[in-house]
Amino acid sequence: MLYTSETIQQLTEEFSRLPGIGRKTAQRLALYVLKMPTDEVRAFAQALVDVKEKVRYCSVCSNITENDPCAICAGPKRNRRIICVVEEPNDVIALEKTHEFNGLYHVLGGALSPLDGVGPEDLKVKELLNRLAGEIDEVILALNPNVEGETTTLYLAKLLKPLSVKVTRIARGLPIGGDLEFADEATLTRALEGRVAL
Amino acid sequence: MLYTSETIQQLTEEFSRLPGIGRKTAQRLALYVLKMPTDEVRAFAQALVDVKEKVRYCSVCSNITENDPCAICAGPKRNRRIICVVEEPNDVIALEKTHEFNGLYHVLGGALSPLDGVGPEDLKVKELLNRLAGEIDEVILALNPNVEGETTTLYLAKLLKPLSVKVTRIARGLPIGGDLEFADEATLTRALEGRVAL
Repeated sequence: MLYTSETIQQLTEEFSRLPGIGRKTAQRLALYVLKMPTDEVRAFAQALVDVKEKVRYCSVCSNITENDPCAICAGPKRNRRIICVVEEPNDVIALEKTHEFNGLYHVLGGALSPLDGVGPEDLKVKELLNRLAGEIDEVILALNPNVEGETTTLYLAKLLKPLSVKVTRIARGLPIGGDLEFADEATLTRALEGRVAL
Repeated sequence: MLYTSETIQQLTEEFSRLPGIGRKTAQRLALYVLKMPTDEVRAFAQALVDVKEKVRYCSVCSNITENDPCAICAGPKRNRRIICVVEEPNDVIALEKTHEFNGLYHVLGGALSPLDGVGPEDLKVKELLNRLAGEIDEVILALNPNVEGETTTLYLAKLLKPLSVKVTRIARGLPIGGDLEFADEATLTRALEGRVAL
């Protein structure tokens, strides 16, 4: 008799389905929920259901939103001539946190990965090309600096070259607060290649 | 505009209230929920509400249960003359996993901690004494081997001494698979003190 309560067992299983949450953590969370105030637990349950019911994808940039187009695409103060291409909605959140980018986004929904069977038709590439028919000054490629992200960056750069639009990519180099001594060779190579005049 | 979806922001906040889940993990989980099948998310939400609505504390051992008394206290095959005292319901789950203990439990609901203002009246100590009025052969103290657990063990040992019941505590020593060389002094001291004849 491992669990004297079936509902605790059930909730433990639900938690352990989430990424990065193992069996023991799931059990600890389930028992924590038991001690939470009832109204907080209800709000949590409602938030879960709401996410599935209310969240849609923006028909312009494919970012998550509740209103179509999303608040960024509909924002009156955003620069509509610059598009920043990212992989996932959390990349938009990360970039918005910098408060440095005032243009629009385009969420691909992933990166090219032949091994996982993800090709251009699985990403919002066609939608990006359609947007470039308008008046766009610059496309910034801000994909993850790993194999899939690099592949996608090179693919998109090649695809966008014939169009009369400036295509840039975000810089690769030493992270702020990092230590040159402990940087890996690939990062240091990119940092040297990407050096800028002072 | 950090979040283009208020419900994702709401769910991120709900997740980040759980212990051991930071802001970034919470955001990742919220976006993962968005990709989960709707019926799985509904089951998750239902499990959360169920835990608050259905789970009670057993009137005998104070363990979590849906039926009072709990399945262990009501179990026909359990040895009702041995009581194992633990701090929390997850300790019962851990001990049941061993399949080695066939007696009953008593969940204190914590351990003595004067610094946090937890005294004997905050724990199910009175309830334990009431149970000892029946026919009990042995009380096993299985509290956590930290300051609060040790304090509680010593307090209970003193309290139970006048009663004609055998009081034992679980062994402290080297964990299986551990390395003597890397064991801390306190653990090695306890292992020496607790040595048994071969």
